[in-house]
Formats: sequence, structure tokens, C-alpha cells
Amino acid sequence: MPNSFGKLFTVTTWGESHGPAVGVVVDGCPPRLPLGVEEIQLELNRRRPGQSDIVTQRKEEDRVEIVSGLFEGRTTGAPISMLVRATDARPGAYDDMREKFRPSHADYTYQAKYGIRDHRGGGRSSARETIGRVAGGAVARKILALAGGVEICAYVTRIHDIAVPEEAIDHFPTLAEVEATPVRCPHGPTAERMIARIKEARSAGDSVGGVIHCRIRGVPPGLGEPVFDRLEADLAKAMLSLPATKGFEIGSGFAGTLLKGSEHNDAFHMRGGTVRTVTNRSGGVQGGISNGEEIAFNVGFKPTATILKEQDTVTIHGEDTQLEARGRHDPCVVPRAVPIVEAMAALVLVDHWMRNAAQNQLFKF
Amino acid sequence: MPNSFGKLFTVTTWGESHGPAVGVVVDGCPPRLPLGVEEIQLELNRRRPGQSDIVTQRKEEDRVEIVSGLFEGRTTGAPISMLVRATDARPGAYDDMREKFRPSHADYTYQAKYGIRDHRGGGRSSARETIGRVAGGAVARKILALAGGVEICAYVTRIHDIAVPEEAIDHFPTLAEVEATPVRCPHGPTAERMIARIKEARSAGDSVGGVIHCRIRGVPPGLGEPVFDRLEADLAKAMLSLPATKGFEIGSGFAGTLLKGSEHNDAFHMRGGTVRTVTNRSGGVQGGISNGEEIAFNVGFKPTATILKEQDTVTIHGEDTQLEARGRHDPCVVPRAVPIVEAMAALVLVDHWMRNAAQNQLFKF
Amino acid sequence: MPNSFGKLFTVTTWGESHGPAVGVVVDGCPPRLPLGVEEIQLELNRRRPGQSDIVTQRKEEDRVEIVSGLFEGRTTGAPISMLVRATDARPGAYDDMREKFRPSHADYTYQAKYGIRDHRGGGRSSARETIGRVAGGAVARKILALAGGVEICAYVTRIHDIAVPEEAIDHFPTLAEVEATPVRCPHGPTAERMIARIKEARSAGDSVGGVIHCRIRGVPPGLGEPVFDRLEADLAKAMLSLPATKGFEIGSGFAGTLLKGSEHNDAFHMRGGTVRTVTNRSGGVQGGISNGEEIAFNVGFKPTATILKEQDTVTIHGEDTQLEARGRHDPCVVPRAVPIVEAMAALVLVDHWMRNAAQNQLFKF
Amino acid sequence: MPNSFGKLFTVTTWGESHGPAVGVVVDGCPPRLPLGVEEIQLELNRRRPGQSDIVTQRKEEDRVEIVSGLFEGRTTGAPISMLVRATDARPGAYDDMREKFRPSHADYTYQAKYGIRDHRGGGRSSARETIGRVAGGAVARKILALAGGVEICAYVTRIHDIAVPEEAIDHFPTLAEVEATPVRCPHGPTAERMIARIKEARSAGDSVGGVIHCRIRGVPPGLGEPVFDRLEADLAKAMLSLPATKGFEIGSGFAGTLLKGSEHNDAFHMRGGTVRTVTNRSGGVQGGISNGEEIAFNVGFKPTATILKEQDTVTIHGEDTQLEARGRHDPCVVPRAVPIVEAMAALVLVDHWMRNAAQNQLFKF
Repeated sequence: MPNSFGKLFTVTTWGESHGPAVGVVVDGCPPRLPLGVEEIQLELNRRRPGQSDIVTQRKEEDRVEIVSGLFEGRTTGAPISMLVRATDARPGAYDDMREKFRPSHADYTYQAKYGIRDHRGGGRSSARETIGRVAGGAVARKILALAGGVEICAYVTRIHDIAVPEEAIDHFPTLAEVEATPVRCPHGPTAERMIARIKEARSAGDSVGGVIHCRIRGVPPGLGEPVFDRLEADLAKAMLSLPATKGFEIGSGFAGTLLKGSEHNDAFHMRGGTVRTVTNRSGGVQGGISNGEEIAFNVGFKPTATILKEQDTVTIHGEDTQLEARGRHDPCVVPRAVPIVEAMAALVLVDHWMRNAAQNQLFKF
Repeated sequence: MPNSFGKLFTVTTWGESHGPAVGVVVDGCPPRLPLGVEEIQLELNRRRPGQSDIVTQRKEEDRVEIVSGLFEGRTTGAPISMLVRATDARPGAYDDMREKFRPSHADYTYQAKYGIRDHRGGGRSSARETIGRVAGGAVARKILALAGGVEICAYVTRIHDIAVPEEAIDHFPTLAEVEATPVRCPHGPTAERMIARIKEARSAGDSVGGVIHCRIRGVPPGLGEPVFDRLEADLAKAMLSLPATKGFEIGSGFAGTLLKGSEHNDAFHMRGGTVRTVTNRSGGVQGGISNGEEIAFNVGFKPTATILKEQDTVTIHGEDTQLEARGRHDPCVVPRAVPIVEAMAALVLVDHWMRNAAQNQLFKF
Repeated sequence: MPNSFGKLFTVTTWGESHGPAVGVVVDGCPPRLPLGVEEIQLELNRRRPGQSDIVTQRKEEDRVEIVSGLFEGRTTGAPISMLVRATDARPGAYDDMREKFRPSHADYTYQAKYGIRDHRGGGRSSARETIGRVAGGAVARKILALAGGVEICAYVTRIHDIAVPEEAIDHFPTLAEVEATPVRCPHGPTAERMIARIKEARSAGDSVGGVIHCRIRGVPPGLGEPVFDRLEADLAKAMLSLPATKGFEIGSGFAGTLLKGSEHNDAFHMRGGTVRTVTNRSGGVQGGISNGEEIAFNVGFKPTATILKEQDTVTIHGEDTQLEARGRHDPCVVPRAVPIVEAMAALVLVDHWMRNAAQNQLFKF
Repeated sequence: MPNSFGKLFTVTTWGESHGPAVGVVVDGCPPRLPLGVEEIQLELNRRRPGQSDIVTQRKEEDRVEIVSGLFEGRTTGAPISMLVRATDARPGAYDDMREKFRPSHADYTYQAKYGIRDHRGGGRSSARETIGRVAGGAVARKILALAGGVEICAYVTRIHDIAVPEEAIDHFPTLAEVEATPVRCPHGPTAERMIARIKEARSAGDSVGGVIHCRIRGVPPGLGEPVFDRLEADLAKAMLSLPATKGFEIGSGFAGTLLKGSEHNDAFHMRGGTVRTVTNRSGGVQGGISNGEEIAFNVGFKPTATILKEQDTVTIHGEDTQLEARGRHDPCVVPRAVPIVEAMAALVLVDHWMRNAAQNQLFKF
């Protein structure tokens, strides 16, 4: 099931960029969870286009409807089906794409794999597919918050070469701090420079990428499975399954490979009656299992592939040609990806939470 | 099944560091594949300890036995069960570990998750578990080679801060070039400096990490599933499921996030009658699906957690204490991880190859 | 994923009896399959209520909408999402059910499992859930017909104690023959007696059950996996997952256990240049794998649990009470179950067809 | 993974009839379960050949070895690998089978599916594969007994046409009662007649089949998932995955289809402060979920396909021929299948127990 994610808490997304609707089915949600459609909408509003002047000006409302799985304000254990109808599709804007493969998009590979493709707006490969992820992730976050007091906070730490100064963010940011600027960087001075850089790129018909950092606190020790389904392995898969991602690193990441063991190891000590680490280069995960410290990872996003410049490409008939994009596009996807990164992290954590419950409820001695 | 990997071509590994044996069951292997035990042994010899003076001097032969799934030199479609008996265990060397958690190892998290742990040599969290992966991966490589002419080549590009100069490796290296030095870096002058650095670390009772680069050629366009089971997502999960890994990047990776879209996009053109990209910043994957170019990714390994220095830690009874490792350890796991990275890549590719076959055989029109 | 069925061709159903809609997501459908909404509608019309005077008189149109996965009349490889909006719900008819558990329904067990339940019309346990199965099954049937010329024909062989005489049906019935009477028994004289028996039961406020026989021809040898995923095991699961089913038997079934080996074995001989069996007590499957003969199995359905008589039961507060059903119900579910049995059989077969393709495409030597 | 069974508690079996060993990997076993090799051996002894004079006289000891997953007498959460080495193989006895397909065996279908087969003793299709199921099932039974006081009791109710008189078994039989005779029918007078019938068949070089009834008590309400993974659906799959099975029925089964709804429904009443049913035609499962009553089902087994009479068949080269079996075979597999049926039932129940735990631990309000 290539369109499903999660073993016990499973989301299955469906829908194309210019189809009548996109949606998600959440299967395995625990019963009796209080849930309202407005909680889902809140998260969708954070990812929707047209929120600010640095993102695409498509005017989608992305109004979600829940059509199953709730009864009198609570989940019932039945699958939760949610969908968002399309309202602002302009398929005409994509006529060129029927004949020509857009560079660094999925046009050619879809054609090669399937022998057919819905070219309008990228079809299934469109970032519009992530609506289902965010809706499903909103349910997962509610569970984590209620069941365990878990908080997930992602934010932008670099756009192109403009990075938040090391250690500038000395506390776990609040949602308000992240949402204070449209670029979702909680460090004000850097945020301003980032916004300027994005506008610059847009004016030049170009695009930029960047890095999102994600921190999670409140996760108890013991989540994650050893060997293949390590917590960091499932987080890596979740993040690399997002459009435009090129890299993932947990804890000290690639920089950590420059340290010696004696510099890198996280010593244990007792703190507040609990086993804690003095440093957190492990990023909250050891041997694939959470150790109770903050989970921290980075995700790298490439510059948006759609640019308003002429590019070399080929036609579906195998002839060299040129292509120049039109239409309304994000000059930088990174700010809008913040709630999506959080949603995917929530999906991974709830799934492992449930797997852990399955294994540890039987023998409590 | 946390100890299984792959949807159609599945490996299930089992065994602990100091148990009587470790092994793997390969389920879903296509029938009629010619296969001999010596082909498996060859790959196991590349990962086994004691190969050179820069790795651990444990004297395991790692002699593999195939106990099912073969008939007269070919696979039958039945599960292939392989096992390696232990010969050089010295459990006495680990008595200290029963009481104390080793920093940046999985001791504490296993105890937190399971309430019980086999402390001897790390039990299930030991790198000895990767024997099963390499044995299963050897079968996968054979399939890829025979069915598609796919070649997988991983090698070390950085140890600590000693890196292969950019562009020094200007061709797809041969196995002989990689195996020419025990550090598995095909650039001779750099390899020598890397070896010296590892010996330095070992003399100081310390450890170092590094980066492995993996290149794969011969993969046809069309492998990988859009949305969640993207080829790069599954590769990321595979690599982050390996002990000691901290990061994964595909194609241009984190460095690519510093480029603009106009610099980063891979233009298409016709070459040899085929759709090809002029550059390969995508790393052979677009929209989650292979595009026929070389697949290229990096994996970052932290410095080995076991060091021969006193470290702060706590006991299983919650008291602060110190621990100093004894025994025979790798001062750097990176060279021995090369065949393991290749094995995991092969497992991912065969699985997607078979998934693709399932979907595309029905309607060839 | 308790609401998903199939490994490679997967349907996920969602929706409750009195929710705003019910639906299905089909994931893994091969690309390039010509498919129209009217083909789905045709199958749904066969299962919908109000078709004749021996089934429930609820007036649902069950009009299906396809909201993803199709492009210009063909599947694209993307998930196919289909939904049916509710139009004739009368929730008031079920107020009693909020407080009282209906005997031999799922009311009590849902409450016990989830601690909450949507009591209206049985909520998720309603037979309305099978709309999604039939819609997904229609896609599967189209694939089987186009890719392999496979035909699936189910029909009613017994209602209560009125059974088709042994050997009365001497050929593979056509759809027209099955649909000739509302009871879906292709043997005319028996059909008339069955209809009378159902009307009798309805007049008495009672209900009856029966047996459906299903025959499948055109399946090539080699479908099904040995050991756990045997073709008959997956068929058994598919059938026992249907509401009101109590039994499954393949080939000679329970009656076959009364024969001796020398009477039961299916001798092989060459016929038309192919290996064939002289008899077919195996029911088309040997060792879990199709042998090219007709696949034949029976499914037993209990009498409908809803009857218009007073019955003893208990309240959700644990008090003894009585309950008398009102509303519009099927006095016998068996005729309407015919297209559902066919749908489930189609889902099992397509899935195994694809699994087989995955395994056998690599080495054709 | 066709050789795996179970979603959270998974067994993967491997091995061929005449290979060096057969075995199983149990993945997902909860940690801290006290377990000894002798508990596994006890169940294997019940299924092994040579136990009595009515089963095959092959002299396999079936001595099991546990090579991973245990530490100081308890499970650790790591996979449990168990294997049994072969000791009494006589491959020479099967030379004929290389060239000729045995009627009603899996020889032809394996050849058709895989294009290759290990003909010796049926290879992977041999009942010897069930050793792994019984070993894995023994772990599952231990969990059910310790965690929930669940008892599983299967026994033979019919051999050929000799059946236990209705209601003759008026209590839940003890293991001693079942094991009192080699035919595993706890009703003494019937057991004697069954044994005579089996010996008769054996003398005639023929074979017989029969029916096993399985009863399970102590299962709390709430196990099983609605829709596809119903408890009876998973039991049906488990049973039909066993060699030689032709049918499955739960509760009233096929006989129940002859009753009217008013006769068949299980009225609820309060008993001992709990919701109970007055009758148990549902067989302990309603809407796919256990209701706290005894779970009861039947499994039908065909007569053994191997008979010592000449039979018509064809060669692998497509020529008509005759075949006459030699060697040591069971004239009736039903008695030896009793512990295997129990093992499969245990595997299904533990898996659903863990799935239930996963879903219900999060919100206890």
C-alpha cells in the first residue's frame, strides 16, 4: 500500500492536484478520543496556500469535512474519513505540461513507471497530497497531547544561506513564536532576512530551499523498535517521503561525524530521580529507542523545482525542447512544510506508542 | 514485525551478540535463482571482524550455513534460512555491563522498553545482528545483477575530518579498488591518511566516525512508489536502521539546499535515444521514483560509542558511577559498514523491483 | 489496518450506516486499466436495497462518485477513492438501540471493545459497509476479465431447507440466469420455492439463512502462496469477514471428509495438451495453489439477526429487558450477498495474481 | 511474506521435509515471559510421528533448539528462533516423485507456480512445516494462559463417518481426557471405533479424514476487529492454511443456516453481574468480536492424499502414467492435527489480544 503510512495508526491519502477532492482515511485511531473538525481545520490552515505574501497565491480554502469515524464528538474506533473539495483549480494553466516534462519534477518518472499520467498540476505528485497527511497528523497530535503531554515543534532554521545563529534559540519555542512571521523562524532578526531572500528569489523568477529543525518533548523512554523499525529510521522515512526533501539527520547528525567518541558520547547521570543524559548528541534516541530526552532532527529541502525561467527539457515524444513555467507557485516551500513535518512526526510517534502498548501490557511484572 | 524488512522480498533477522547463533530468513525470493553458499560467505567475509589491523580483533569466522530454500543449486521460492554459529564469545568481558549502562549505547533504552535485557555484548543491539542483513543482501545483489545488471558500490569518503577531495573519484569504482585498502576508500592517498587517523584514535583509546557514499548504476526508470514508499524514503529508513548512523542525504543533499532552483534543477535532454538528465542533483530519484540515472547517497556514522576511557554513567539501580570499557572493539565502524550499506541498498531495490513487476505486468498496452 | 484487505491490491472501506457517506480507497490498482463509473454502479445496483419485494424496502440509490485515481477514462496507478452519499437514513427508527443490545448483532461486542458505539443502524457493523467492498471488487473483476479472462459466478443454492437438487445446475451459469429471479438461484423451480419461503418468514416477522455457491473459471495454475497465504485460506478469510457468515468449505468440503482417500483423490491426466484432473474434489486448489480447474466453494449465512418479534436482551446499564425491532429489514440477506461474495473473491484473486507476477517476472529461464 | 502469520505476534516458518532442518522465528513476543525449551518440546511431542500405532512410523525425535530471544529463562522482546534438525530422512523413498505428480498433493501446483520443486517428501508442502507452527503456538499458549487464563482444547469429533454422539461431551475436556486415546477423541467408546476404522483403512492401503472441534474459554469480550480482521475470519484463514483442510465453521455453522432467526438468535441476559448469552449459536463471536462466551469451531480434514494403491497421474513431461506410493504415511492425519489446530488458534488469539491492547491503553476514560 504505497499510499498508506503507519502500522497500527495508519493514514491512507488519496487525490490529485486537479481532481475533485483530496482526502485521507485514518485507520486504527483509538476510540473515545474527543475530536472536532475545527482542530483538523486549524492545522490545514497552517499549510494552505495564500496565507502570506511569500507563498503561492492560489486561493484554496481547504475546508475539511469529516465523513466517518466520529459519534457525538468522539472517535469510535472506526476509520476516520476526511476530505477537502477543490475550489480554485485552473487546469488551463498546465496545458504545456501535457507534452513536456518539467525538470526536477516527477513528470518523467511517473510517465516511465505508469505509462500514463495526470499532468495537471503534477497530479498525484503534487504537494496537495500532503493535505491528507496534515489532517491525519492533527488526529495523531491530539492523541499525543492528551495521552502523554507530548509537544512537537518544527521551525525554519535556514533559508538558502541565511541561518539562525547557533544557540540563538535557547528554549523550546511556542507555537506563537513560530507563527509570528510567515517564514516560521522564531528568531526575529533572522526571519526578516529570510523573508527578504525569498522575495528576492521570487522577483528573479527563481526559488530557494532550506532546513527545518524539529524538536519533540514529553516522549517517554521506550518508544521505537530495535533493528529495522528504529524510531529514527521511521522518522527518516517519514521525512524523505515529503516532496522536495534531500536529507535527514538526527541529533548531532553529519556534524557529529566530525567528533571523536570521547567528545560525542552522552554521559548518563541521575537527575530528578531519573536516568538522564548530560548532553543530547543522540537526539533523544539510542539504539533506535527513545531515551526520554528531547527528540531533535533536521530535514533539508531543495529549492522549488518550478521556476519562472526558460529551461531545457524534452517532450513525451522524445524531442529536445524548452519549457517556461507560468502560474502561481511557491518560491520556497520550506515555511509551508513546517506543519507537514510536524504532522509526519506525530504519525510516527503515535504508531510507535501503540506498538509499545501492545507489547508491554501483557506482563507487567 | 520489527525484525523484518521489505514488503515482497523480506528479511527477518534474529540472534544476539553472545547467543548460540545469529541468522536470517529470506522470504519471497524468486524461484530458479542460481545460488551457492560461497556467494553468501564472500559478502560475510567483507563485514567480519579481524580482517585487518584497523578493526576489532575478535576472531569470528562467521561461517554461514543455508538450511532451507535451495534445491540442486537453485532457489525454490521457499524461505531461505541461513545461520552463523558463534565461536569466539567471551561473555566474561561484559560482566560490568550487567550493572552499568554504557553511554550512547542501547543498554538503558532496552532496559526502559523491555524491563529486561541481555547485557552480554549488547545482546540484540549488537552490530552482530547485521550478519543476517548482509547474508540476505547477498541474495538480493545476486538477483539485481542477474535480472537487471544493477551494480552497487559503496565506499568511505570521510573518516573524522579526512575527506576524499571533491571529484577525486572520477569513475564508478571497481570492487578491487574499494577493497584495495582496509579502510575501503578507493582514493589511495586519502585512504592512507584515514588509516593513520583510525590508528591514532585507537592508540588514544578513542574512536572516530565518518561518511559512506553509495552509488548504484543500472537501475531502470520506474522503481519506487510515489507518496510514502518513495525510493529515497525507503533508502533513508534502511540506512538509519543501521547501528551508529546519524544522517542520510540523497543527490545534492544538504549542500543542495544552498543552491537556487535555477542552479539545482536537472535539465532533461535526449541522449542515446533516451530521456536523460544533464546533471544529477536529484541523485537518480525524482518524485520518489528512479529516473535511470545513477542513484547516489551519503550515510553519516557517529564515532563508535565504546571507548577505552572512563566515562560517567549510572547503574541499573539508579546510582551515578563510572565505566571503563575493556575488550576488543572497533575504533571506527565505518569501513566494516561498507558491505552492510550495500546489502541494505540491495534489499530496498529488489523489493521495489518486485513491486513494480506486480503492478506493471497486467496491462502492457 | 483492520479496515483494509489485500496485500498488493488493497481496499480500505470506511463509513457508518447512518453517517453522511460510505466509501472505499483502492490502492495498488495497476495503471492503464480502462474504467468507467457506470461499471462500478452496475455492481452496486445488484447489492442495493429495494431491488425486489423479497429484500428490505429502504430506498437508497447508492449512487457512486469516483473522486480520484482516474484520468481520461483510465486508472493512473494512484489510489481510487469512491464514495456513496446517504439519502434515506431514518435515525429515529433506532432510538431503542441506543439503550438495548440487539441479540446476535454486534451492539454488545462493539460496546465491550470500544467503550463507545454509534448505535444508529449498527454503525460500522452495518451491512452498508459492504458498499465499499463491492465498489472495490468491481475494479478487481474488470482487471481479472481483461488480464486473464477470469469469470466469477456466485448463486444461491439453498434458502433455509430448500436446496437446488444435486446436479441440477449442469453448466457454468450466465449472469442473466442468476439475475433471472430476485433470489439469485439459477434453477427456476427451486427459485420459486425459495422466494415463497422468504415471504413466509417475512410475514411471520422471522428470518431465514442459506448457502451461496461460488464458481470461478479461467484462473491459471500457480495462484496462491503455500503455507499461510493459501488461496483457500485467503478465500475463507474473505468470506468469513462478511456479516452473517458461519461457514466456508472448498471443493468437496465437509462432505468430502466422509470419503476414503481412494474415492477422494483427483487423478491427473493429460487433456488438450495440459495437465488436468479427472474429478475436482480439490475445488481448483492443491497445496494452497490453483491448479487450473474451476475454483468452487460454499459460504453459509445464518438467518438475519433482526426479527420483528420480541426478544430477551439487556440494556447498556446491565438490566434484563425485552426488545422488538421495527423498521425495514431483509428477511433473508443471502440473495443480496451474491454480488458481495463475488466481489470478495475478485479481490483475493487479483491480489494473488499480482503477487505471482512479482515473483515470476524476474527469472523466466 | 507468505511464510509469516500474525500482525503483531508473528511466526515465520521455514524448512522442507527432507532439508537439514525446519524452524520458526517468533517476532513480537512480549518481554519477560518465563519460557523453557521443555514447554515447546511438550507440544512438539504431541504432533510428532511415531507416537502410536495409528500414525506414521517415521522415527523423528523432533528435538527443538532455541537459539535466540531468551535470557535467563525469560523472553527479552527479541525474536525467538527455534529449529529442529532432521534425523530420519530417507530421500530414496521418493525417487518416483521426481518424475510423477502425486494426485491431490501439491506437486503439480508447485511445479506450475515455481518452475522448480524439491520433490523429496513434498518439500515445502510437507506437513513437517507445521513443526514451526506448533513451536510458535506453544509460546502463544503460554502467554494466553499467563496473561488471561485462556484455555484451548481441540479434539476429534468425527473420523470418516464415525462421529461422537451429539451432546456426549458435556463438559470442557481436560488434556488428559483428550490424550487418553491416540485418536484424541475424549469419548471413549467412539474413540475405540475410530481407531478401528483408521486401522481398517491402513490395512486396505487407503486413508480417511474427519472433523476436529475446538473450544476456547477464558477469552474476554472485545477481541477481534470489525470488518476484515474479524476473529472468525482470522480463525478461518488460520485453519484453512493447514494442509488437508477443506472447511471451517464457527458456532452453529452450516447447520445453523437451517434455523430461523427466532430459533438461532442468542438472547442476552445478565448472569453473575455480566452480560451473557443464553445460548451460544454465535460461537463466542458477534460482529467479528469475542463476546466472552466459549469460542467454538469445527475444521474438516480430507482423507490423506497418499494411499498405497495405484493411481492415474501424469509425468512432469506431460505423459499419462500410474503411481503407487511407498514409504511410511499417516492413514489419517486428523489425530496429529489436534495440537496444530490448537497452535493456530493460540496464534490468532495472542495477535488480537495485542492489537486490542494497542488500541485501548491510550484512553481509559
